[in-house]
Amino acid sequence: MPLPIMCHFALRHLDPHCAARCGQLRTPHGAVETPTFMPVGTQGTVKGIATELLESTGTQMLLGNTYHLALRPGEALIQKMGGLHRFIGWNGPLLTDSGGFQLFSLAQNTRVTEHMALFRSHIDGRLIELSPERAIAIQEALGSDVAMVLDHVVALPSSAEVVRDACDRTVRWAARCRDVARRPDQLLFAIVQGGLDADLRVACTRRLVSLDFQGYAIGGLSVGEPPREMYRILDATCPELPADRPRYLMGVGTPRDLLEAIRRGVDMFDCVIPTRNGRNALAYTDQGPLRMRNLQHQDDDRPLEAGCPCLTCRRHSRAYLRHLFQAGEMLGPILLSLHNVTYYQRLVAQARAAIQAGTFGEFFAHKCQPWPLAGDASLDDPDVSQVIGEPSGA
Amino acid sequence: MPLPIMCHFALRHLDPHCAARCGQLRTPHGAVETPTFMPVGTQGTVKGIATELLESTGTQMLLGNTYHLALRPGEALIQKMGGLHRFIGWNGPLLTDSGGFQLFSLAQNTRVTEHMALFRSHIDGRLIELSPERAIAIQEALGSDVAMVLDHVVALPSSAEVVRDACDRTVRWAARCRDVARRPDQLLFAIVQGGLDADLRVACTRRLVSLDFQGYAIGGLSVGEPPREMYRILDATCPELPADRPRYLMGVGTPRDLLEAIRRGVDMFDCVIPTRNGRNALAYTDQGPLRMRNLQHQDDDRPLEAGCPCLTCRRHSRAYLRHLFQAGEMLGPILLSLHNVTYYQRLVAQARAAIQAGTFGEFFAHKCQPWPLAGDASLDDPDVSQVIGEPSGA
Repeated sequence: MPLPIMCHFALRHLDPHCAARCGQLRTPHGAVETPTFMPVGTQGTVKGIATELLESTGTQMLLGNTYHLALRPGEALIQKMGGLHRFIGWNGPLLTDSGGFQLFSLAQNTRVTEHMALFRSHIDGRLIELSPERAIAIQEALGSDVAMVLDHVVALPSSAEVVRDACDRTVRWAARCRDVARRPDQLLFAIVQGGLDADLRVACTRRLVSLDFQGYAIGGLSVGEPPREMYRILDATCPELPADRPRYLMGVGTPRDLLEAIRRGVDMFDCVIPTRNGRNALAYTDQGPLRMRNLQHQDDDRPLEAGCPCLTCRRHSRAYLRHLFQAGEMLGPILLSLHNVTYYQRLVAQARAAIQAGTFGEFFAHKCQPWPLAGDASLDDPDVSQVIGEPSGA
Repeated sequence: MPLPIMCHFALRHLDPHCAARCGQLRTPHGAVETPTFMPVGTQGTVKGIATELLESTGTQMLLGNTYHLALRPGEALIQKMGGLHRFIGWNGPLLTDSGGFQLFSLAQNTRVTEHMALFRSHIDGRLIELSPERAIAIQEALGSDVAMVLDHVVALPSSAEVVRDACDRTVRWAARCRDVARRPDQLLFAIVQGGLDADLRVACTRRLVSLDFQGYAIGGLSVGEPPREMYRILDATCPELPADRPRYLMGVGTPRDLLEAIRRGVDMFDCVIPTRNGRNALAYTDQGPLRMRNLQHQDDDRPLEAGCPCLTCRRHSRAYLRHLFQAGEMLGPILLSLHNVTYYQRLVAQARAAIQAGTFGEFFAHKCQPWPLAGDASLDDPDVSQVIGEPSGA
């Protein structure tokens, strides 16, 4: 499958000591330096962040959710309004997922047959069909720069038979997506499934690579398994992926997850963590997480992070941010979301610089210090994983 | 009472056909061109608008609520953090009210004696005293550029005796505030009360003017009386105010209210209407109000207002804004608040330009067209006066 006009992935730097890599993904709406992090614009907005301010965070590329946008306002309306870029006021690169993950996490009474998935909308209970062909048609109507194939995601743990069956279907569905994709200005990425079975992941990867996609995602992870299990699957999968195509780890993750995956050769990420935790008063810093409702910040005049260029840190103290959360003011979630997205963008930008300088190993060791694997606060702390104002599993 | 160092009010232009006037209020934190509109930063934030973005709306001066800030986080903390400007990250002029209006609208079990008001906090029920001396002490700790005297606000209608008693107390309290105010870098404004009794308003004004304050506010209006009643009181009061001192109509109002009051010689306004209604999906435009949940906007590609320089209108269509409100996304309230504050700032900027050009009469007639007096939507429509996410009477 040839690369569409105006789209191209170029590897620029390879770390000599690990699989970390730097590259550039060119799309009709601009170039993306990889490794990159995509904030999640679930319903056509990164929650709480005006599109104009996203640029100030260092964000290069956004993710939009096919499932959410197809249900509301519907892809036909978005197409009529000139496509997703124009509709949401973001003129940079956009990736849309396929809805596969939401079928698993959010839709009601989902029934998967070989032909398609049938489910009830979580908004109004209406019965909806999503086939591979329809997933592509929606994404072509949305006009994203990167479209994803429809995949079959299953809960972990599931029986080996269930995981294998879903994995096989994912490959067949990927082929069907590939057969119907028509837009010359849209890249199509396949999604590797296979649960926590490394052999199955390798087999799935090889079958998808033989179909020759323009990029490859690793899906069905970060659904509750221990981080080390996810890293084990990356260790098995990444070496099977072609070096000249972008690699995207879907729905991941914590700062530590990003660093671990970059070290294993992943190029792209998306996750709601920075915004969701930001709305819940958790701030990311290089000294570890700060819980901004905590009394210790009451009279702390310092910014969240010294030297952080974000709008929040340039203007506001921890004391003020704590006050906003105590007073229930929406500016608290807004300012913490902005900071956290900036933190993630700085993290990947620093990773790119370290790879280019050949010093990723030192950078990794240093940056991981506040994010220990075992006690990762953003996974273990019920305060932090709690969702505010967003459908679960979005 | 001499004007504080660095503070000065200068009249620049008087309309030849009405009482409208243009001036400049200089404060230690910068100059304010009048007529001016102050967005309300109730709890140290204009709801939903990052301080940095306020500048892009044309806002020159903010209002902070003494009642709210004294209850949470407390003026001692704000003082420790360097004062209100520094605490909220706004380096421009700031006015603080005295808490008089919240004693009437928000506090529980308020009991007013000659010495002070005693009330229970609406947050935790704790018993709190607010005397004229304490209101000044709080505002001096906050360090606003303009402080207000503590006034005694009563419900309308009330008996003549109740209104007169509160009006008399307001004058006595103003004198007590004047006696204890010490900051040389803070202006002190008196507040005219007297309900809807024009004679009482005139008498109150004369008594306050004889005490010689640096500015005069007209309070206790826009509390449910018909707009024409408020304008009648302005007609009686404004001619009694000294021409060389700024005049501030508190808690007002609709676009029509601002135009009517500017015509009668008022210089300053504050109101939650643009942000509160913005959160409730109502947008202000020169063609009248737009209710953004309405189906008619579903596929409307136009901005809220052609030519509006706000972040919302520069990037986003009515269709997108409707989608945000339909989807319950916080970006809807954010973007409409931004637009509405910009609308109000453009309105007063245009009024200033018209006064300078000597064309305020034509401007008034033209601008009032979408804001008819009788059917003023923002007063009559229950949808619009409903409060979202904010304590009532804030």
